[in-house]
Amino acid sequence: MNQPKAYLEGLVNLASEAFQFLKSTTIAERASFMHAVANKIEGLGQDLLDAAHRETALPFARLTGEKARTVGQWRSYANAVASGTYIEARIDLPNLEKGKSDIRKLSIGIGPVVVFGASNFPFAFSTAGGDTASAIGAGCSVIVKGHPGHTKTSTIMADAIISTIKDFGWPEGVFSHFLGNNVEGTDTQVGAYLVAHPAVKAVGFTGSYRGGKALFDIANQREEPIPVFAEMGSINPVFAFTNVLKEKAEILAKEYATSLTMGVGQFCTNPGIFIGVKSEDMDRFKNALEAEIFDIAPATMLNPGIYAAFEKNKATLSTQDQVAVLSESVTEAVNGQGRPKVVTTSAENFIANPILGEEVFGPFGVVVEAENYEEVLAVAQQLKGQLTITMACTKEDARAHQDIFNVIKDKAGRLLFNGMPTGVEVVHAMQHGGPFPACTDPRFTSVGPDAVKRFVRPLAFQNYPDEFLPEELKNENTLGIARMVDGVSATKSI
Amino acid sequence: MNQPKAYLEGLVNLASEAFQFLKSTTIAERASFMHAVANKIEGLGQDLLDAAHRETALPFARLTGEKARTVGQWRSYANAVASGTYIEARIDLPNLEKGKSDIRKLSIGIGPVVVFGASNFPFAFSTAGGDTASAIGAGCSVIVKGHPGHTKTSTIMADAIISTIKDFGWPEGVFSHFLGNNVEGTDTQVGAYLVAHPAVKAVGFTGSYRGGKALFDIANQREEPIPVFAEMGSINPVFAFTNVLKEKAEILAKEYATSLTMGVGQFCTNPGIFIGVKSEDMDRFKNALEAEIFDIAPATMLNPGIYAAFEKNKATLSTQDQVAVLSESVTEAVNGQGRPKVVTTSAENFIANPILGEEVFGPFGVVVEAENYEEVLAVAQQLKGQLTITMACTKEDARAHQDIFNVIKDKAGRLLFNGMPTGVEVVHAMQHGGPFPACTDPRFTSVGPDAVKRFVRPLAFQNYPDEFLPEELKNENTLGIARMVDGVSATKSI
Repeated sequence: MNQPKAYLEGLVNLASEAFQFLKSTTIAERASFMHAVANKIEGLGQDLLDAAHRETALPFARLTGEKARTVGQWRSYANAVASGTYIEARIDLPNLEKGKSDIRKLSIGIGPVVVFGASNFPFAFSTAGGDTASAIGAGCSVIVKGHPGHTKTSTIMADAIISTIKDFGWPEGVFSHFLGNNVEGTDTQVGAYLVAHPAVKAVGFTGSYRGGKALFDIANQREEPIPVFAEMGSINPVFAFTNVLKEKAEILAKEYATSLTMGVGQFCTNPGIFIGVKSEDMDRFKNALEAEIFDIAPATMLNPGIYAAFEKNKATLSTQDQVAVLSESVTEAVNGQGRPKVVTTSAENFIANPILGEEVFGPFGVVVEAENYEEVLAVAQQLKGQLTITMACTKEDARAHQDIFNVIKDKAGRLLFNGMPTGVEVVHAMQHGGPFPACTDPRFTSVGPDAVKRFVRPLAFQNYPDEFLPEELKNENTLGIARMVDGVSATKSI
Repeated sequence: MNQPKAYLEGLVNLASEAFQFLKSTTIAERASFMHAVANKIEGLGQDLLDAAHRETALPFARLTGEKARTVGQWRSYANAVASGTYIEARIDLPNLEKGKSDIRKLSIGIGPVVVFGASNFPFAFSTAGGDTASAIGAGCSVIVKGHPGHTKTSTIMADAIISTIKDFGWPEGVFSHFLGNNVEGTDTQVGAYLVAHPAVKAVGFTGSYRGGKALFDIANQREEPIPVFAEMGSINPVFAFTNVLKEKAEILAKEYATSLTMGVGQFCTNPGIFIGVKSEDMDRFKNALEAEIFDIAPATMLNPGIYAAFEKNKATLSTQDQVAVLSESVTEAVNGQGRPKVVTTSAENFIANPILGEEVFGPFGVVVEAENYEEVLAVAQQLKGQLTITMACTKEDARAHQDIFNVIKDKAGRLLFNGMPTGVEVVHAMQHGGPFPACTDPRFTSVGPDAVKRFVRPLAFQNYPDEFLPEELKNENTLGIARMVDGVSATKSI
């Protein structure tokens, strides 16, 4: 579906107008709106689940859980917004003797944001997902380009937000949703067109490296560059150490196989590589993993495009030099199903061949065997930025390998001491992001209430009379939020 | 002076090693180091002032004040770092029933930072200035390219930091300073070389649009793009309204002339344009300004390059169509002195000719006369991003022109209700930055302790045993900092 330029211009104009309105809202008003959206989504029924199941092949149990997660995101972000955490109110009171002015600062929305949702989370990381919730919480209007893989789902979710806007009497441009490929009559993709539009001030994206990096480049080549937070996935290495392999090689193999094939391997935090030192216990792990993968049935992937890419990338990595197949599901795949597969290679080969470090989106893993821990360290050192890195280890292992522990701090946004990286909890301490190419700016997260920070900018008011200050900065702290007054956190009025 | 590539590689290697060391320091240790640097700078004597006076022509009184400001920056940033504000510790405790993990997050240094200091603040925004202080506070090693305009000053300041590093027994690469133009034997500037270097992870810059934007582009074209905070100056408009002009046109003219010519107009927050509606009171303002500028003597600019650029840009703007000279200092300038000058034009012409909105670094102002407030609004709407905007007004004016007040919120980092923008206080509520082209990322500031935020990134630890967590996240809160525990701020141990 193509869209006329005039239609897109209309969306941007509405978003700009609505941003002017949102600038006048308080954090309490935005939080109230967000809770209402949460209620609206919670009230959506079987139609939503049916549409999503039909469009993404994700099972109902998973979709039910993801719906609850999405509702929870809106609520927890709303509460964090209402608490004042993200406006970071700072008040420095005047001091005539020292010639100091009255200066007050808060963070406001950066402007209209364009959001590109992910294929793999049709609720939580798509139209009404974390990017939209955090941008609105920040005080930004949002234009969502609905994901072509789940247009009906996207439309139902959009309608929930649009109907909340009507309930609140807010300007319609607070949230817009559209479907489309190219700008009508041109070769320009609508996404590229919007990201290049002067009235757009930030971008949220979850998806492939190729897609995210292209938008990042467009945004930085504008006359006025704008921030792009693109979460582009990673291979989420799992490092396994001597004692943990000895203690539980078979359990670890089961955990790894489960995580690798969960959701047909279609998670940004899917653990695509597993690294250990050659040993009898590593052989036990491989044998157990071979058996696990053998037994896991293929399942339908999100859409034919993702299936095709999976097959292609799986074949590319599997046919590299010095790569051997360890195991493949015994069940043949049919009709766009992803068939789990694991290959092995040496650490030396992994280091020498960068192709083996590329993400394969789907149930495909590479077991990397090192001769010794110097090689493991070398693998860690040459890793690109990751969303997560898991250390499968005992405390004794960790004490023995602090050099590797120190290196991985530079390589990921979230480090796990045992446990698998799939299952990204929506909590304040979550970091979902990481050094490039996991995402385009490691200073931000796209999961957890801190996601709001991507879309705010500070604005200082010097010697403003109380009546012209935003509610959050007035002398009377009507919202009861924590403010830094002369350097000290305080909730009292001034 | 050119630098061999091997020398620059050596600096980067030392910075990388030192970053590994800094990752192991606590906020308390870094704060202690910063206080020691402050003491060391405070102890510098007349040699420093003499060098800076000789190299920049800035008067001793100004330099003495700037030295104190620089010391104050190190101290206030150190205190803010020690308080834990910038590590943003977040702890979400596990809940076995709900299947929730123990997740803890703090912000760590982003990596080695390259700093380019400003010509106009040889202490506060140069080698030992705010960028260096905030990067070290964040936990980053720093490489400063000394400003060619004040190499001796830069070296004295660098030595103060280097000697503190020795006192602390820290790795030398925590801070490096060098002078240089090109990489020896090439046409590549050392700045460009360093910003493109894979081991460098962020850039701090204060200076011209041309310089900052060039570094920004290099950083974004790297295989791994990195954040650049470039503060590139602006024209800091002053809008004057009916009642304030009526009440104090002459006082306003004096305030404006003083701010415009302060430091020979060499401030990033120099108020380059003044906008008002034609009226008898505006004529009073212009007459008074004419007399003020007439009486202000030229003074020596920072260096011959800046003087030459001032003359060139002043001539370019003065000779645009429909631009008339309002006033010029009666005193002829000699030997690289900047001669104050103010021109006038209509709002219509200002809007039609973008050249009139370009920064002239030096004592040069443009008085823009509008026919009515619709035109004033139009001027506000077409402004590019600014560091500051001043509203010279009474409360009555402000009530009458909320449309303009709302527009300027999108156009600057700091808004002033009367008062001139020069004099940037180093306080928590300060915002020194603003929408592009004032700086490359409006979400950050380069003045005030919040400047630290530019150089940190969050890192989450999932299910890490206490002994392997950074001190700031351990159960026992030995540093006594505020941490967000299960969403609520707490200083207690866990």
